[in-house]
Amino acid sequence: MTSQKTFREELLERSRQVQEILYRYLPREEGYQSALAEAMNYSMTAGGKRLRPLLMLETYRLFGGKGRAVEPFMAAMEMIHTHSLIHDDLPALDNDEYRRGRKTTHVVYGEAMAILAGDALLNYAYETACRAFACGEDAANIGKALGILAEKTGIRGMLGGQAVDVQSAGSALSEDKLDFIYRLKTGALIEASMMIGAVLAGASAEETAVVEKVAGLTGLAFQIQDDILDLTGTQQEIGKPTGSDERNHKTTYVTLRGLEAAKKDVEELSARAAELLGSLPGENRFLEELIRELAFRRN
Amino acid sequence: MTSQKTFREELLERSRQVQEILYRYLPREEGYQSALAEAMNYSMTAGGKRLRPLLMLETYRLFGGKGRAVEPFMAAMEMIHTHSLIHDDLPALDNDEYRRGRKTTHVVYGEAMAILAGDALLNYAYETACRAFACGEDAANIGKALGILAEKTGIRGMLGGQAVDVQSAGSALSEDKLDFIYRLKTGALIEASMMIGAVLAGASAEETAVVEKVAGLTGLAFQIQDDILDLTGTQQEIGKPTGSDERNHKTTYVTLRGLEAAKKDVEELSARAAELLGSLPGENRFLEELIRELAFRRN
Repeated sequence: MTSQKTFREELLERSRQVQEILYRYLPREEGYQSALAEAMNYSMTAGGKRLRPLLMLETYRLFGGKGRAVEPFMAAMEMIHTHSLIHDDLPALDNDEYRRGRKTTHVVYGEAMAILAGDALLNYAYETACRAFACGEDAANIGKALGILAEKTGIRGMLGGQAVDVQSAGSALSEDKLDFIYRLKTGALIEASMMIGAVLAGASAEETAVVEKVAGLTGLAFQIQDDILDLTGTQQEIGKPTGSDERNHKTTYVTLRGLEAAKKDVEELSARAAELLGSLPGENRFLEELIRELAFRRN
Repeated sequence: MTSQKTFREELLERSRQVQEILYRYLPREEGYQSALAEAMNYSMTAGGKRLRPLLMLETYRLFGGKGRAVEPFMAAMEMIHTHSLIHDDLPALDNDEYRRGRKTTHVVYGEAMAILAGDALLNYAYETACRAFACGEDAANIGKALGILAEKTGIRGMLGGQAVDVQSAGSALSEDKLDFIYRLKTGALIEASMMIGAVLAGASAEETAVVEKVAGLTGLAFQIQDDILDLTGTQQEIGKPTGSDERNHKTTYVTLRGLEAAKKDVEELSARAAELLGSLPGENRFLEELIRELAFRRN
């Protein structure tokens, strides 16, 4: 895993393994409500990098986790992420017609079904995560992981960030507010992913707090890189239209700080994340490279 | 509690106590995301009968429950019910402007915030229910209650019923499909409410299965009575416009079976629920009267 190529191959292989796990937890398309399951699965099978469940699994491995309870949580995390994409794309929010190169859910299934499919994926995340109780592992740890999942998804996490983002649309943002939106809207689920991996593997409260910081820095670097790519990438590379921030006069990290400073900040955040990760017991070289890759990705 | 008047007073008193419990679990309106919390609380404080948490608490008492873990679950149940009302009222779904005599969430806060407030309430239900793990009661039972909550809310419960209802709008329904919608859309949360009360109080799997049947019969009677009231009630009594089913040419239990047969079915369902409830160990006269009242209510 020393060369970039070997890491890339490894990443592809592990993402494929993660996807196989996710697919085992998709709802069955049966009964009168089969169209709802179909709409849920349409977006769940639309590809994507599966980064959050991958981060969860690799953090679980970092702390020596060897059980199965992490698997339903990996699927749950991707369901929550997908829920947020479906609802973000709705006409009343971002009104996007394409995502990952495919038509968005509301374009294919209609607005009402897209709202319900998003709701149902959010709920199915919890239904799926609850299956971890049947794995015969520590119920208190699973309860703790559920609590983290819910807090980081909710009003003090992703949905809180999303609400502030929606409210701020069309007006200039302060650096403080933009930072708040990034930490919650993007960062919170990355924090939850890594924290849940740690907690399920039996990490201590102190170790879990360090993991939260690593994830927070990684998430921020990830989001700033997103802004950079929106400015410098092409639709073909990224799979969605670029330059949208500029067209929408949107305040981003790049408009506030400038492109060069933004690039430097990504480097610094990534370096701090790597340093903190190195301070933890255990070693996971793949996870270290993955966190670096997230900051410097090209798509 | 032998006279109807005494039961009514008792119902008012206990509903008030339930409401006090719910209010302790509402999100704080603070930080950048305070508008989201405000939109969530707008609908949570709009009144309503608090029937689901009341049924949960009374079933908990029936099985001798004396702890506190039921309280976050009561709040969670009302949040999920309220989530469904906010999203049902959206322009893409029922497009209702009034609910419980007040303007609906999307009318007051806009469509984007209403979608997010509904999402956030659904999620906050799980965040709140997870607080039960801190009560020091049996974690496995709490996990079981969470699993019931998620299953009965999701694709095999309320949201599944809602999706089939939305898809069937404007077309005639078979009795089988209407029964499916009623059992899932309305029945599932009533089943979950009573089952969670039973499980948290330590009821056996067999007892919980009987409780599920009692709740299913009660929920069906409740929904048929809703159809009857839509035809025979007035806006003042019910707090929302009546006659809407007829105006919308909607298939209801009354249009399929006729008013007199529907009234008779409510009586039979209610009697069967009462009989099954009586077969359980323990006694809760208030719960017996409440279940009867739900079937024969006038608003």
